[in-house]
Amino acid sequence: MSKPDHFHAWVIDHYLKDGLDGSELHWESRPLPSLKDGQVLLSTCLLSLDASNLLWLSEREDYLPQLQIGDIMRGNIIARVGASCHPAFAEGDYVLTIQGWADYTIVDGDALLGDRITMKIKPHADVPLDAYVGTLGITGWSAFIGLMKVGQLKAGERVLISGAAGATGIMAAQIAKAAGAEVYGLAGGAKKCQFLKDTLHLDDAIDYKAAENLEQTISQVIPEGVQVFFDNVGGEILDAVLPNMCINGRIVASGSVSQYGHAEQYGVKNLPLITSKRLRMEGFLILDYLQQINDVLATMETWLLDGKLINKNHIIQGLENAQAALPKLMTGGNIGKLVVYVGNEFD
Amino acid sequence: MSKPDHFHAWVIDHYLKDGLDGSELHWESRPLPSLKDGQVLLSTCLLSLDASNLLWLSEREDYLPQLQIGDIMRGNIIARVGASCHPAFAEGDYVLTIQGWADYTIVDGDALLGDRITMKIKPHADVPLDAYVGTLGITGWSAFIGLMKVGQLKAGERVLISGAAGATGIMAAQIAKAAGAEVYGLAGGAKKCQFLKDTLHLDDAIDYKAAENLEQTISQVIPEGVQVFFDNVGGEILDAVLPNMCINGRIVASGSVSQYGHAEQYGVKNLPLITSKRLRMEGFLILDYLQQINDVLATMETWLLDGKLINKNHIIQGLENAQAALPKLMTGGNIGKLVVYVGNEFD
Repeated sequence: MSKPDHFHAWVIDHYLKDGLDGSELHWESRPLPSLKDGQVLLSTCLLSLDASNLLWLSEREDYLPQLQIGDIMRGNIIARVGASCHPAFAEGDYVLTIQGWADYTIVDGDALLGDRITMKIKPHADVPLDAYVGTLGITGWSAFIGLMKVGQLKAGERVLISGAAGATGIMAAQIAKAAGAEVYGLAGGAKKCQFLKDTLHLDDAIDYKAAENLEQTISQVIPEGVQVFFDNVGGEILDAVLPNMCINGRIVASGSVSQYGHAEQYGVKNLPLITSKRLRMEGFLILDYLQQINDVLATMETWLLDGKLINKNHIIQGLENAQAALPKLMTGGNIGKLVVYVGNEFD
Repeated sequence: MSKPDHFHAWVIDHYLKDGLDGSELHWESRPLPSLKDGQVLLSTCLLSLDASNLLWLSEREDYLPQLQIGDIMRGNIIARVGASCHPAFAEGDYVLTIQGWADYTIVDGDALLGDRITMKIKPHADVPLDAYVGTLGITGWSAFIGLMKVGQLKAGERVLISGAAGATGIMAAQIAKAAGAEVYGLAGGAKKCQFLKDTLHLDDAIDYKAAENLEQTISQVIPEGVQVFFDNVGGEILDAVLPNMCINGRIVASGSVSQYGHAEQYGVKNLPLITSKRLRMEGFLILDYLQQINDVLATMETWLLDGKLINKNHIIQGLENAQAALPKLMTGGNIGKLVVYVGNEFD
C-alpha cells in the first residue's frame, strides 16, 4: 500500500459529565510519521462502539489508564497491518485490538505483541469482517467460554439464561442452542420474551416482571430443573433460580447487573443449596481464556456459516460519523451492536 | 472362628421425642441362624456414635428408610467378616458400613456389595482400628476431598476454615497443615482459637465473636487474601470472607451450619465478587467421591503415622454401654468422637 501523509482521529476535548453534549470529541487531521524500526502501521477497518467507550470518555477509574484531554479517543478496533517494521507482523495481517479512534495508527510492535487484549485474527473468507466485533467478537467469546468451558454444557442439557435479551444473553442463548441444549431465557417484558422465542428459537422464555412468584414460575416451565444457569443478573433472580437447580448443576456467574450501581445490595438467601445440591458457581474473565480463542472462533465461524448464529450489527459508515453515533449507546436506538465502518479492509 | 449361637442388639422401644429418656432402646439377645448361600456374617468391632443416630432414632425423614419400633437400631460400624458364603467376601475382611447396633449381623452379600455406603477397608498394621471411624473416617475424607479435590489446594497456599473447631473443621485444619498450606481458622471464642493454635498448630485463629468488623479483622490477619476458603458456616461469615478472597480463589461449600434450623435465612450480599474475582464456589457430597477413597486413605494413613494428624476418639467399652453414651451426643460431654468398642477385632 502507499502510506498516507496524514491520519484522521477523534480527540478528547472535554470529559463526559451528565449525558453526552456531542462535542466531547473533535476531529483532527495529523501528519503520519514514517515507520521506525520495530513499529507497525495499523490501518483501521472497523471501530466497535461499546458501553466501555462512555467510561473511557469519563473521568473515572477503569482497568485501563485514564485518557487525558487532547488524547485520541480509545476504542475496540479491527485493523489490517498496512506496513510493518516488526518481524511478528506482516502486511495484510488482521488484529483485534484496543487503539485510538483513528484511520491509521503507528504502534510499537513489541507492545502490540505483549498486549494481552490484542489478538491476531484470520478472518474466514465467507464471513463478513464486522462479525469479528459482533457475533464472533468478545461478547460471543464470553458467552461461549462461560457456557462450554466454565458451565461444561453438554448437548441435551437444560440451560437457563438470565438477562437473555441483553448483549451477552443473546449470544449465550444462540450458542447454547447451537450446542444442542434445551434453552430457556429470563427477560423483562413480553416483547423481549417474544424475540427470544421467535427470533432466537429458545424453547421457552419467562418474563420475570410478569411472574408473581418467579421461583414457582421457573419450576412450572422447567419442571425437571436447570442443569446450567448462565447468570448475567444475580440478586433476586439468582435466589429464585437456586431452588430450581438440578443436583450437580453449574452456575456461570457472568455478571450481577441487578446489583450494579445500587448502594443497598440484595442478599441471596438460598446459598445453602450450593452444598446440598452440590452446585458449582463460578466467575470468569475472558482474558484468562484467550489462548483458547482460536478454537472457539473456529467453532463459532462454522455455526455462523451454518446459520445457527445471527450476525446483526448496526453499521455506521465512516469514522467521521462516529461521535454522532455515541448517543445510541445510551438510548438503545439501535438493533444489534454499533459498528463504525472505517475502511482499509482491502489493500 | 466358631460361630456363636446368639447375638446381642439394641432394639427400638419408642422414638426419641423431646430429649433422650434413656429407654428408647432395649437390649435383646436373639438366636443367630446359620449362614445361607450368599450370606455374610459380620462381627462388629467398633460402633461409631454420630449425630445422625439421633435422627435415626426419631420419627422423621432421612436419606435412609425410617426405622420401625422393634427394629435393631442403626449405626456406622467397622466389622470383620466372621464367615462368608459369598465369593466377594472372605473371613477376615474388614468393612466400614451402616448396620445394626449388634455384635453379630447376618447380611446378604450382594446387598452389601451393591450398597454404596459400604466399603471394604484394609487397616494398616500400625494404625489403631478406631482411627478408621475417627480421623481416617468419613469426616476426614470429606475434609480431604473438599480441600484437595474440590478446593484444589496446593502447598504454600493460604487457606481459611470456618467452624474450624467443629468436627469437619478440625479435620480440615489438620489436613491443610499436613498438605503444606498456610492455615487460618475462624471459631467462636478464645478457648477454641487457643486450641486451634496450640494443638492443631494453625498459623493463626480468628475469634469471630470478638471481632467488631470481621471483614476487616480477616484482612488484617491475612492481608494477602484467602486462596481457598473451606466454609462450614455460610451466612454472615461467608459475606465477611468474600471481599478477602484472592482472584481465582476457591470456596469449598462444605456446609452452612449458621443457616440450619433458622426460619429467617441470612442473605449473602457480596456474591457479585464471584464474578469480579473469578471465584469458584462448589458444594460436594462425599458419596460422589468414594471411588477415590482408597488413595485418600493411603495418604491420610501416612500423615497419621507421621504425626501430622491426631486420632483422638472417646472410647466406650462394650456394646451394652452404647445407649448410656447417647446423651453425650447432645451435651458434648466428650473430647473427640464417640466410639463404642464392641470386640471381635481379632479372631
